[in-house]
Amino acid sequence: MVVLTSEFALINEIRNLLPEPAEAGEIWIGDDAAVLGTGHDEWLLLAADTVAAGVHADLALTTLADFGWKSVAAAVSDIAAMGGDPGHALVTVAAPPGVDVRQLYEGIKEAAAAFRCPVVGGDLTNSDALVVTVAVTGHCATRPVLRSGARPGDLIWVTGPLGASSAGLRLYRTLAPAGPPGWAARLSEPERQALLSAHARPQARLKEGRAARVAGATAMIDVSDGLGADLSHLAEMSGVGIRLDSVPVAAGATMDDAFNGGEDLALEFCAPGSAPVGPTFDCLDTPIQIGRCTADRAERTIAGESFGTSGWEHAFV
Amino acid sequence: MVVLTSEFALINEIRNLLPEPAEAGEIWIGDDAAVLGTGHDEWLLLAADTVAAGVHADLALTTLADFGWKSVAAAVSDIAAMGGDPGHALVTVAAPPGVDVRQLYEGIKEAAAAFRCPVVGGDLTNSDALVVTVAVTGHCATRPVLRSGARPGDLIWVTGPLGASSAGLRLYRTLAPAGPPGWAARLSEPERQALLSAHARPQARLKEGRAARVAGATAMIDVSDGLGADLSHLAEMSGVGIRLDSVPVAAGATMDDAFNGGEDLALEFCAPGSAPVGPTFDCLDTPIQIGRCTADRAERTIAGESFGTSGWEHAFV
Repeated sequence: MVVLTSEFALINEIRNLLPEPAEAGEIWIGDDAAVLGTGHDEWLLLAADTVAAGVHADLALTTLADFGWKSVAAAVSDIAAMGGDPGHALVTVAAPPGVDVRQLYEGIKEAAAAFRCPVVGGDLTNSDALVVTVAVTGHCATRPVLRSGARPGDLIWVTGPLGASSAGLRLYRTLAPAGPPGWAARLSEPERQALLSAHARPQARLKEGRAARVAGATAMIDVSDGLGADLSHLAEMSGVGIRLDSVPVAAGATMDDAFNGGEDLALEFCAPGSAPVGPTFDCLDTPIQIGRCTADRAERTIAGESFGTSGWEHAFV
Repeated sequence: MVVLTSEFALINEIRNLLPEPAEAGEIWIGDDAAVLGTGHDEWLLLAADTVAAGVHADLALTTLADFGWKSVAAAVSDIAAMGGDPGHALVTVAAPPGVDVRQLYEGIKEAAAAFRCPVVGGDLTNSDALVVTVAVTGHCATRPVLRSGARPGDLIWVTGPLGASSAGLRLYRTLAPAGPPGWAARLSEPERQALLSAHARPQARLKEGRAARVAGATAMIDVSDGLGADLSHLAEMSGVGIRLDSVPVAAGATMDDAFNGGEDLALEFCAPGSAPVGPTFDCLDTPIQIGRCTADRAERTIAGESFGTSGWEHAFV
């Protein structure tokens, strides 16, 4: 929690160091992706994510290929969270000697193919720690969905049950040689596989992001730090309160996984009650309504109880 | 040298893993920047560079602000080397606890302002090593200058004397408490300052890159690994030999600094004898002709002597 709080304070300080957007309608630092005018009937989106071994993945549990996949999925998810289409990716790898960079790139390649965001360049260098950065472009034919557009009365939706990545990490730990006892013995094999896959190979929700934009979403963010933390960002930037009824929990996950677990890459979005969310998502997993935005900007409640803004600390060590 | 050789072999392997460009005229991996069609009368350029503490900078000698500057300059230089105009930057920072990230961003901010490439987003995370990645966009109203377009008979130019960054690093070492003796006592104060500045605050040659493109440059690359190594890449990709007459050495630098020293960010380019290089560069530093391309693809000579492809190893430790 301390990590996150200071990180956000620092990001605010850094934002104050940097210039304001040059053109009307542009968004620079502060949303999932930057929104830039192109002089044509389209917006350019730019986003970058960095994953560090030991912070965003425990390589004793998951593979280098999984790590590569995750680095791409996290960046592409930022495009999804704007309702955009992915363009191209740049991948930079800083790695200590001895890291099997080929295996890392196998996962990068698989994710780039899965999300249709081909790798067109990058860099490779020595370093004392394994750090992978993926920068992506995206585009949007209509106005992208920002974090700041939610209004009191808007309904809050999530693209699916949450917590699978966090539960998947716990499950991986039970599989490690010195792991904790097998709490997951009661899970079915398909449930186990779904949790492991959710952790090792998270999915960027591109179709869902586009569908939410087309349905008339007013604000959107991806779940990277935990539902509570990410909804709080959205609420602060929109100037609304958050009143949740319940949180959908993935099979095999706990309420704590679902509410505080990061890296699910599900999308949270807000839309007026009149928005055609169901019909627009017709051929996709049905999004789940979890609450509504309120006029009391300080409100952060779930089933009547307050929740804080703490989230996932991205730290395994 | 081993580092570089294996790095290039690995980059080739990685390139084979990844798909070919989707559209005619596009260049993906392998040049200074990726070249992408936009559907309009313009090319989009994308490039990313990673700098790691202890590899690309010794923070006992130069400051965190210098490190931030260098990270931006190196990425923008990739746009310069295509003859392009910079667009926007994404900056990601992976840093161990205790690193003064504000100071780092001061240098990033100064470079972004100097090169007119505003920072519009990025990421910040914990890591066991300080690694900064800068991804930049650029654009080009006419065809960008690739590495692969040089033809036998083309003249080879460099935008200025070389070796100042490498000599500047040696000079910083004499200033360190336990540094070597002051070999640089014979330098004038302006020469000393120029060397230190060349190392700590390298300049991306955007104007020179544009001028070379407008003059009709057939191939271009920036000096990041050393003149010999970078010209060898250009020659391999163009299918030409290299016959150099001489190499211009920056005041206070040695021939070894100039030929093997990396990170000068000067531009090397080739152009037919008929190209109006002088007039096009009229209001800039005059580029220097250093040799010519030959039809013997194996030729790598300077004043009649062979040179190898070894370059700068980017390693201080």
